[in-house]
Amino acid sequence: VTFFAQVMYDFSAEPGNNELTVKEGETVTVLNQNVGGGWIEAQNSRGESGLVPEDYLQVSVCFLLLFFKQLCETFPRVHCCCCCLQVANGDNPWSGGGTYTNKTMGDVGPVWLYPQSPLDCVVADPKKGSKMYGLKSYIEYQVTPNTTNRPVNHRYKHFDWLYERLLEKFGSAIPIPSLPDKQVTGRFEEEFIKMRMERLQGWMCRMCRHPVVSNSDVFQLFLTYRDEKEWKTGKRRAEKDECVGPMVFSLIDPEAPELDIIEVEQKCELFSRFTKEMDDGVKDLLNVGNIHWKRCTGPLRKEYQKIGKAFQNLSSVFNTSGYTGEATLTDALTAAGKTYEEISQIVAEQPRKDLHFLMETNNEYKGLLGCFPDTIGVHKAAIEKVREGDKMVAAGKINTQDKGTMAKRISIMCYSLQAEMNHFHSNRIYDYNRVMQLYLEEQIRFYETRGRIL
Amino acid sequence: VTFFAQVMYDFSAEPGNNELTVKEGETVTVLNQNVGGGWIEAQNSRGESGLVPEDYLQVSVCFLLLFFKQLCETFPRVHCCCCCLQVANGDNPWSGGGTYTNKTMGDVGPVWLYPQSPLDCVVADPKKGSKMYGLKSYIEYQVTPNTTNRPVNHRYKHFDWLYERLLEKFGSAIPIPSLPDKQVTGRFEEEFIKMRMERLQGWMCRMCRHPVVSNSDVFQLFLTYRDEKEWKTGKRRAEKDECVGPMVFSLIDPEAPELDIIEVEQKCELFSRFTKEMDDGVKDLLNVGNIHWKRCTGPLRKEYQKIGKAFQNLSSVFNTSGYTGEATLTDALTAAGKTYEEISQIVAEQPRKDLHFLMETNNEYKGLLGCFPDTIGVHKAAIEKVREGDKMVAAGKINTQDKGTMAKRISIMCYSLQAEMNHFHSNRIYDYNRVMQLYLEEQIRFYETRGRIL
Repeated sequence: VTFFAQVMYDFSAEPGNNELTVKEGETVTVLNQNVGGGWIEAQNSRGESGLVPEDYLQVSVCFLLLFFKQLCETFPRVHCCCCCLQVANGDNPWSGGGTYTNKTMGDVGPVWLYPQSPLDCVVADPKKGSKMYGLKSYIEYQVTPNTTNRPVNHRYKHFDWLYERLLEKFGSAIPIPSLPDKQVTGRFEEEFIKMRMERLQGWMCRMCRHPVVSNSDVFQLFLTYRDEKEWKTGKRRAEKDECVGPMVFSLIDPEAPELDIIEVEQKCELFSRFTKEMDDGVKDLLNVGNIHWKRCTGPLRKEYQKIGKAFQNLSSVFNTSGYTGEATLTDALTAAGKTYEEISQIVAEQPRKDLHFLMETNNEYKGLLGCFPDTIGVHKAAIEKVREGDKMVAAGKINTQDKGTMAKRISIMCYSLQAEMNHFHSNRIYDYNRVMQLYLEEQIRFYETRGRIL
Repeated sequence: VTFFAQVMYDFSAEPGNNELTVKEGETVTVLNQNVGGGWIEAQNSRGESGLVPEDYLQVSVCFLLLFFKQLCETFPRVHCCCCCLQVANGDNPWSGGGTYTNKTMGDVGPVWLYPQSPLDCVVADPKKGSKMYGLKSYIEYQVTPNTTNRPVNHRYKHFDWLYERLLEKFGSAIPIPSLPDKQVTGRFEEEFIKMRMERLQGWMCRMCRHPVVSNSDVFQLFLTYRDEKEWKTGKRRAEKDECVGPMVFSLIDPEAPELDIIEVEQKCELFSRFTKEMDDGVKDLLNVGNIHWKRCTGPLRKEYQKIGKAFQNLSSVFNTSGYTGEATLTDALTAAGKTYEEISQIVAEQPRKDLHFLMETNNEYKGLLGCFPDTIGVHKAAIEKVREGDKMVAAGKINTQDKGTMAKRISIMCYSLQAEMNHFHSNRIYDYNRVMQLYLEEQIRFYETRGRIL
């Protein structure tokens, strides 16, 4: 490790004292910081060394580096693997056989019952495949779940099929975010394939993280089918599944007393407002992020390029002066010009490194938040119905037993929605901690690593 | 001086060995770099200290800082006072009494005879004055030459008068750059007065640096008049000066053999092309500089502000979640938002610090370069006349003696133009070295000093 320090004031060495004369602005290498008595042993660029008063030196620090380092440390550390979200399970976790369950938990109210080891999968290795004797070609992705560790292959249209199934089955209770955009042009270009794979990975991770979705037959089929036959049979069964839409609530057994409907309504209202406001906030961030991205890769890059060109151009003109003794100036001007061209490239490449992940995460959240109005709508309509229960009994439309069943059903829906809210919040905190950390780490890397390369 | 280092890999201390356990990404303070054996004594943020392998640490360096430091060192050092330009005078400098002289010199050809100690002046202390019982008000600047050290007061219109005199007297031989713009609106605003003063200072410096201009009666009068009477008398005399325009060449005594007219023409052509190309280069740099300035103070500032606002906004929304345990995230998001707002301010203030001087110098050069076509035009016309000399003698328009006088006059003009070219080149090299150094130093200061403030 070599330390550099900058000289702040001129210092003249006293002869015979092993001191070093230094000039303001000079950069010296620190040989020994522990000489004591307020002295530091330093070496100048000509290789001469000696003592310099400590107060005459300062260490070069980059304020942006400091800024981002301090910031980065304020975010709580999270691990950066994909699906490692761990929600505290409380004591005595209880899982009810084949039905999805949830249970009341400490501070936050109802939560889903999370599996001890969370499901995860890796989407990788996109390969071009073809059928009908090469007439039709497509891209196949390898999906490997951490449970079987056995890869299965899927095309985009299979993911799309899975999405449709999940939406149909869970859409009333759980927001199922859309898949990354369908897109036909550039479908086989490397950049596009990489981007789509990354987004499919993100989508799969989110689904894996959801204890209800990830535990469903159709999701398990998608991840673990062993051969074409099993896949086709499973597909047919899933398409015939009748436990879809509101029916899904019948699978949930809260094993808990009915919730207070007033409190549930308030929470629901709060959450509804929250998701709307977060949606605005996320869209706002995406908007400025996009503008900044475009400015960095467009006008700003061009501007630094132009500054670089202007310096180099001036240098060329100066070279034609026919006047002697300006080689140092023209060389330096050319170097300055080249540095600015380099900076222009670095600036243009940066968004793909730092903004990219921030944008991707917020895009995912934009999709997710877009699902909530429907989920909440189903819920509100149901509560309305319970409210009208007495009238309906009076009008003879339903009997008291029906009303009781309805109330119980609503209670289950309430549990489910609240578990979903809590699932959303804990994921959100995890995701935003992670994305901010990655973003700031990239800022730090931006300033730091290039220093090592030079 | 405190040195920080960043931990690159995890390191587990062996018990009893005075070692320190550190984690990748952690920042430690270096207590002793000279422990030896590949070890460094470091302290972590909790105040614990111990030995860490040297290879596990790296020093934080900011690549931009490195870039600019390296660049800055490539430019030859020049002192940053105003008029300290020193042109080597060669041996045996010869000055002829009251006439302006020049002499041949080593590599570059004819140069003006420069005074041993260059003239300089300081324009400072703008004060509002008024006359006609306060009906008319104006700004008066204090001008103090380094020869008398006695300040004299001048209004802008006096500078303008001086400019007119110098243009009339020397315009055929020496490019006299225009004064900073006349401007009526905002004439008494602080910003404007400061800017005008700075530009008047720049203009005066350039005039002081010119050995012929600075030695003239009218320029000396402007700098050293002792009272209103002396000023008025001097003014009247200067306005009646008949040694103006081409007549000024009669004041120059090259005391040297006639120059080769072909060579002079070639040099003149080269210089003409050079000034045209430099003019383009300077305008180009001014253009991108202006665009960059506007982007920094306008869209870029707003963009960083918006990013900052978007983070803070998201933080506020998150605060309304009603979910427990996200205070760390929202605090960190708010901090990130505030940092970006701070960065936006810093970015917006930067051009005034770094670009400003680069722009001012190039603006000055734009003005100066604009004068050359006229100066060169006068010269070319004169050469043409000498060419026609024989014809004119044959046609009886002039006699042989006239032709000889004419040839001698042209020779003087050639000396003068070449001295002027050399004056321009040496000043240009000095100015651009200086301005690039200041510019790069400001870049370094931009990244560095804020580190100390924090």
